[in-house]
Amino acid sequence: MSITSFYPPQRTLMGPGPSDVYPNVLQALSRPTIGHLDPTFIKMMDEVKELLQYAFQTKNPCTMAVSAPGSAGMETCFVNLIEPGDKVIVCINGVFGGRMAENVTRSGGVLVKVEDEWGQPVDPAKLEAALKSHPDAKIVAFVHAETSTGVLSDAKTLCALARQYGCLSIVDAVTSLGGVPLYVDDWGIDAIYSGTQKCLSCVPGISPVSFSPAAVAKINSRSVPVQSWFLDQTLVMSYWSGEGKRSYHHTAPVNTLYALHESLVQLQTEGLENAWARHAQQHLALRAGLEKMGIEFIVDEACRLPQLNTVVIPDGVDDAAVRNHLLQTYNLEIGAGLGAFSGKAWRIGLMGYAARAENVALCLRALEETLN
Amino acid sequence: MSITSFYPPQRTLMGPGPSDVYPNVLQALSRPTIGHLDPTFIKMMDEVKELLQYAFQTKNPCTMAVSAPGSAGMETCFVNLIEPGDKVIVCINGVFGGRMAENVTRSGGVLVKVEDEWGQPVDPAKLEAALKSHPDAKIVAFVHAETSTGVLSDAKTLCALARQYGCLSIVDAVTSLGGVPLYVDDWGIDAIYSGTQKCLSCVPGISPVSFSPAAVAKINSRSVPVQSWFLDQTLVMSYWSGEGKRSYHHTAPVNTLYALHESLVQLQTEGLENAWARHAQQHLALRAGLEKMGIEFIVDEACRLPQLNTVVIPDGVDDAAVRNHLLQTYNLEIGAGLGAFSGKAWRIGLMGYAARAENVALCLRALEETLN
Repeated sequence: MSITSFYPPQRTLMGPGPSDVYPNVLQALSRPTIGHLDPTFIKMMDEVKELLQYAFQTKNPCTMAVSAPGSAGMETCFVNLIEPGDKVIVCINGVFGGRMAENVTRSGGVLVKVEDEWGQPVDPAKLEAALKSHPDAKIVAFVHAETSTGVLSDAKTLCALARQYGCLSIVDAVTSLGGVPLYVDDWGIDAIYSGTQKCLSCVPGISPVSFSPAAVAKINSRSVPVQSWFLDQTLVMSYWSGEGKRSYHHTAPVNTLYALHESLVQLQTEGLENAWARHAQQHLALRAGLEKMGIEFIVDEACRLPQLNTVVIPDGVDDAAVRNHLLQTYNLEIGAGLGAFSGKAWRIGLMGYAARAENVALCLRALEETLN
Repeated sequence: MSITSFYPPQRTLMGPGPSDVYPNVLQALSRPTIGHLDPTFIKMMDEVKELLQYAFQTKNPCTMAVSAPGSAGMETCFVNLIEPGDKVIVCINGVFGGRMAENVTRSGGVLVKVEDEWGQPVDPAKLEAALKSHPDAKIVAFVHAETSTGVLSDAKTLCALARQYGCLSIVDAVTSLGGVPLYVDDWGIDAIYSGTQKCLSCVPGISPVSFSPAAVAKINSRSVPVQSWFLDQTLVMSYWSGEGKRSYHHTAPVNTLYALHESLVQLQTEGLENAWARHAQQHLALRAGLEKMGIEFIVDEACRLPQLNTVVIPDGVDDAAVRNHLLQTYNLEIGAGLGAFSGKAWRIGLMGYAARAENVALCLRALEETLN
């Protein structure tokens, strides 16, 4: 056996994530590792918390990064908030809603599904009907920006309904954070998780989460321990807490947290509203170019994600061959369809650092040359 | 709010981990991010698997890195192998054995504890007595190298006992992998997990694991799903499998895997036996210097970890003040005592890249100057 060092190609990442990483984030990533209990590192963790509060638009003290990818952020929300027998309404309109449902049953919850078609947003009327039929429901969960379909759901309305019927809300913001408006406190979101490798343009591997005081109260009043030791927020909170002495829980992913810190400094410097506007603007540029080529969007404009453009693969076009050609010839990655959209759609991401005029130009030109 | 970029100090890490990271591993970490489904990346994942098989000395096809820290590697082994009601014998001689016990109960297992004193290795006679008293036990779990005490247990004998009594074995090799001899196949280990931030001198955040064919068979014949979706090996295996089409599970921590790949290339280049010998040699140098200063080891020489030296804090010495002085004056981190050893012991790590003559010299000189 003789395996040598790995040198990845320089790609342009315009799929559903990971997205192009900011150069200064990669620099931050490779700074010298220090101990996770080093006072300097603890101060940095406090800054990460404060920067995440800004990104999420929340004052929740329980805001931090789970030391594992977005899927683990999802699981953190479900295993902490669900006690065995709790009824949970999950709105499903794509892959990630389905994954939420899987989390409910594995956490010992009683699952109630509210389903919408792929490519459609979650229908608030259906949620309200379910809430009326299940007055004993305790939690409502849905995906804000469905990465599998490119659809934005109305998180504000859905959370207001949950609250109106006495439920806590769990929101998947993996693809929405930093790309479209999101106001955790104003919208009354109780538990939210995201990823770093989408609109934050950080490397993948950790998952920002935030819990409202009501969610924390439910966690603290559990009668049975959280089934996961690693994701147990009652323990993790003591590790991330700024007050008094921190309790050792696990070893934080030190360098990945440097990277998250840097990407959040970048977001703070640009300003949330400016970042949202940039995603919207580049989406319009991409849309104009695609429409000129006769390529159609799957999702209605009203609920279309600017950062993840799901388009119909034109008739007679070989899906895999086109994506492979883009990768081999232009070092450009766009995303395949997932689940029900497999082979039928492409997902073109304009996330974070990838939402730039030069990326849109490259993508349009490369697609045009490949399809003609 | 105005938070600026974070520039960590350059420390020398001689605590219980994270250890000093190889400079070329930090370089690998910051190479351009590519998609986790990119063919180039998939090939690299295959290489990581092969390199881990070498590090673990195993042919297990089910060898990979869990996308989260060692604590999640531990949880992966327990939640996959335990079905509700399974009786599990856990040998406890420090913090991490206690954490294993916690994992058993949270996974729905029936816990049998075999306890040894802190600073002592696991006693095979006690394990055999427990196996005789509990003929219905299905799993034996223990820590190979206890990070909280610096003790090495006899994994070969303990695994042989487990097998003799019809049990599968789960072994914590977080601190042992790459630092002391470890032969997964020869010793008949069924499930093993490790960390990257100890003797591999990689950044923290992911956890190498390996499962024997017998362990995989138990996982595949489960009657209830694994309680964790994120850690469910039946799903993760399809993501890491080299055969045929891979199934999307989660987004791998792309850059951290570059770093692990590089640290494993480093280990392959040095050679496992040479790495073990280097740790032993630097331990002897450190020991000689400490003994000259009258500092005593807590652990008997026969079961002392070369890579983690637990020593008695001399009478009248202020634990925190000394560690703080070392950090502030010499940028040198050594570890505090944990649990029962809190305030009574220091843990001096010689792990991976930190097991070098210059580190030993710095540590001895700095300690001498600080204590006098």
